[in-house]
Amino acid sequence: MIEAVQQRLEGMLSPMGEALADYGPDAAVLFDAAADAVQGGKRMRARFCHAGWSAVARHRDRQAEEPAALWGLCASLEAFQAAALVHDDLIDNSDTRRGRPAAHRGLEARHRERAWSGDAEAFGRSSAILLGDLLLAWSDDLLEEGLAGQEQAASVRSLYARMRRDVTVGQFLDIAEESAWALVPDAEHAERALRIVSLKSARYSVEHPLLLGAALAGASTAQSEALGAFGRPLGVAFQLRDDMLGVFGDPEVTGKPAGDDLREGKRTLLVALTRQASPAGTRRTIDELLGDTALDDAQIRFLRAAMQDSGAVEEVEALIASSAREAERALSGAPLDHAAVSELRELARAATVRTS
Amino acid sequence: MIEAVQQRLEGMLSPMGEALADYGPDAAVLFDAAADAVQGGKRMRARFCHAGWSAVARHRDRQAEEPAALWGLCASLEAFQAAALVHDDLIDNSDTRRGRPAAHRGLEARHRERAWSGDAEAFGRSSAILLGDLLLAWSDDLLEEGLAGQEQAASVRSLYARMRRDVTVGQFLDIAEESAWALVPDAEHAERALRIVSLKSARYSVEHPLLLGAALAGASTAQSEALGAFGRPLGVAFQLRDDMLGVFGDPEVTGKPAGDDLREGKRTLLVALTRQASPAGTRRTIDELLGDTALDDAQIRFLRAAMQDSGAVEEVEALIASSAREAERALSGAPLDHAAVSELRELARAATVRTS
Repeated sequence: MIEAVQQRLEGMLSPMGEALADYGPDAAVLFDAAADAVQGGKRMRARFCHAGWSAVARHRDRQAEEPAALWGLCASLEAFQAAALVHDDLIDNSDTRRGRPAAHRGLEARHRERAWSGDAEAFGRSSAILLGDLLLAWSDDLLEEGLAGQEQAASVRSLYARMRRDVTVGQFLDIAEESAWALVPDAEHAERALRIVSLKSARYSVEHPLLLGAALAGASTAQSEALGAFGRPLGVAFQLRDDMLGVFGDPEVTGKPAGDDLREGKRTLLVALTRQASPAGTRRTIDELLGDTALDDAQIRFLRAAMQDSGAVEEVEALIASSAREAERALSGAPLDHAAVSELRELARAATVRTS
Repeated sequence: MIEAVQQRLEGMLSPMGEALADYGPDAAVLFDAAADAVQGGKRMRARFCHAGWSAVARHRDRQAEEPAALWGLCASLEAFQAAALVHDDLIDNSDTRRGRPAAHRGLEARHRERAWSGDAEAFGRSSAILLGDLLLAWSDDLLEEGLAGQEQAASVRSLYARMRRDVTVGQFLDIAEESAWALVPDAEHAERALRIVSLKSARYSVEHPLLLGAALAGASTAQSEALGAFGRPLGVAFQLRDDMLGVFGDPEVTGKPAGDDLREGKRTLLVALTRQASPAGTRRTIDELLGDTALDDAQIRFLRAAMQDSGAVEEVEALIASSAREAERALSGAPLDHAAVSELRELARAATVRTS
C-alpha cells in the first residue's frame, strides 16, 4: 500500500516541473526541498489510516477495494506530517532529520551552493517556513482530491480539522511548557506532560489516522469506539517510546544525535517523574542541565543516570507496557475485520518495541 | 458585508473558549493571538470576492441573496491572509503590523508578561510559526464549511489551491531574489521583479479573490475572462502602489516605519528601474545601502532621491495609471451586473490611490 501513497505524493510534485516555466528556475529550490520532505519515514499515519479503513470496510465486505479517496487521505496525512516536521525542526533548532540535514539546513546549503549573497542561515529558516506552508496546502489538496462527493466527506473533514487543531495547539503547549514549567508546582508536571503527549503526538500519530480511515469507510459508533479505545493508549505508548529514544536511543539507528531531547529541554513525562523522585540537589542539577544546547557526554551521562536511579525509566517502561496491553484488549471481540485487526496488532508492536 | 465576514471569523474563534478546558489555560495565549491576527485590515480580498460573486450572480438575478458558502469563502480568504502576514512578518523581521506589534513580537511580550523562563524572542518566533499554521488550518475549515454539496465546489477548490501555491512560491521567489539578484544581469531585474509582483501579490490580492467569488456564482468563460482582464492589471497597480508606499509612505498612515522596505532590501520594480537608470557610482551606493537594517534618515533620503532623479518614480506612477486604465476598460460592456461593476471601479480607485 505504501507504493500507492508514494504515487499520490509524487502526483502532487510532478506538475511542479511544468510550473517552473511560470515560476522561473529559482522555484526549483523550493520544489526540490518539498520532494525531499515527503520522502522516507515510517509512513505510520498512512498505515494506521489504511488499517482503520480496512477494519471497517472489510468487516462489511471481505473483498472491498480501496477507493481513490483513501489514497488521497493517506497521502494527505503524510504531507501534513512532512509539513509539521519541517516547522518542528525549525522550532526545535534540530539540524538533522532521519540522518540527513533538516529542511532549513538543506535550504541553507542550497543558498551557499548557488553563491547567493546575504545570510544563508536566515534564508534557510525563512524558506523553511514557506516550505512548510506549501506542504500544508498540498495536504489539503490531497485530502480533497478524492473526497468530493463521498458520502462520508463531512465527517472525514471534521475529524481532520480536529486533528490539525490538536496537533498545532499541542506543539504550542510543548514549547510553552519549556518556558512555563518553572512556575508550575512540581506535582502538576507529570499531568501536564501527559496532556501534551496526548494532543501533539499520541492522538495525532495513531488515533486520528485510524479514525479517519474508519470514518471514510462509514464506521458505526461501536467500531469507532473500539478503534479509539485501541488508538488512544497505543498513541501514548508510542510517544513514550519516542521520549525514551530521545534520551537513550542509538544515534546510528534514530538518525538523531545522542541526547538530543535533553539539549532541547523537552519537558517529557520521563523528566517530570525523574524530578519528582530525585533528591533536591540532583533535581537542581537536572534543572540546570536540561535545555543547555552545549551539553557534553558526561552531562548527558549524568542525566541518564538520574532517570535510571530515580526509577522513572522503569515507571515509563511499565506505562508503555500497560498501555500496549490496554490497546491489545480493546480490539478483542470488536466488530472489525479479523485480518485488519491482526495488522493493527502488528503495527502496535512495531510502534512500541521499535528502536528508531 | 464586512460584518458577515467578521461573524464567520469569530464563529471560528468562539468554540476555542470551550476548548480551553481540554487544552489548558496556556493555550489562551495562542487563541488570543489568533483573534488579534484576524482583526482589522482593509478586508480587500473579501471585498473583491464578494464583488466577483455579485457581478455574476446578480447579472443573472438582480435579487440574488449571498449563499452561506460565499461568507465562508470570504472569511477563508481573510484567515489565509492573516496567516500569510504572520509568517511574512517573521520572515521579514518586521516588528510592526498596522501600527501594532507584529504577531511574533506580541507573543514575545506575552512570554515576558507571564515571567516565563528562557528566551522570550525565540518563543515569539517559534509560536508565530504555529500561529500561522493554525490560521492556515482555519482558512481551510472556513472554505469547506459552506462549500460541501455546492455545484461549483470543485472549481472553487482548484482555484483556491492555485492561489495558495502561487502566493507561497511568489513569497519564496521574493526572498530568493534578495539573495540572488547580484548574480542576475541588470537587464533582467525589472522582469523578475514583475514576476514576483504578479505571483505573490497582484493575482493573490485581486484576481484570485474576484475569480473565486465568480466561480462560486457559476461564471461563464466570458465573465471570468472579463474579471480576469480587470483583476490582473489592477493587482499589479495595487502592488506597485504598495511598493511606493513602502518607500515614500507616511508612517502615521501606513502603520509601518518610514523606509521599511529599504531596510529590508526588497527587490521591487522601483528598485530595478532606479538601478538601471542611475550612474555607476550611485548604483554602487544603492547596492550597499539596500537591505542594511540600520539605515539612518540621511541614507533613506539618499535612496528616495535616487529613485526620484532616475525617473523610476515617474515610470512606476505611469505604470500604475496605465494599469488602472487597462483594468477600467476591461469591464466596459462585459456581461456583468452594473451595480457590481460600479463597486469594482470604486475598489479599483481605493486600491491604487490609497495612502496606506
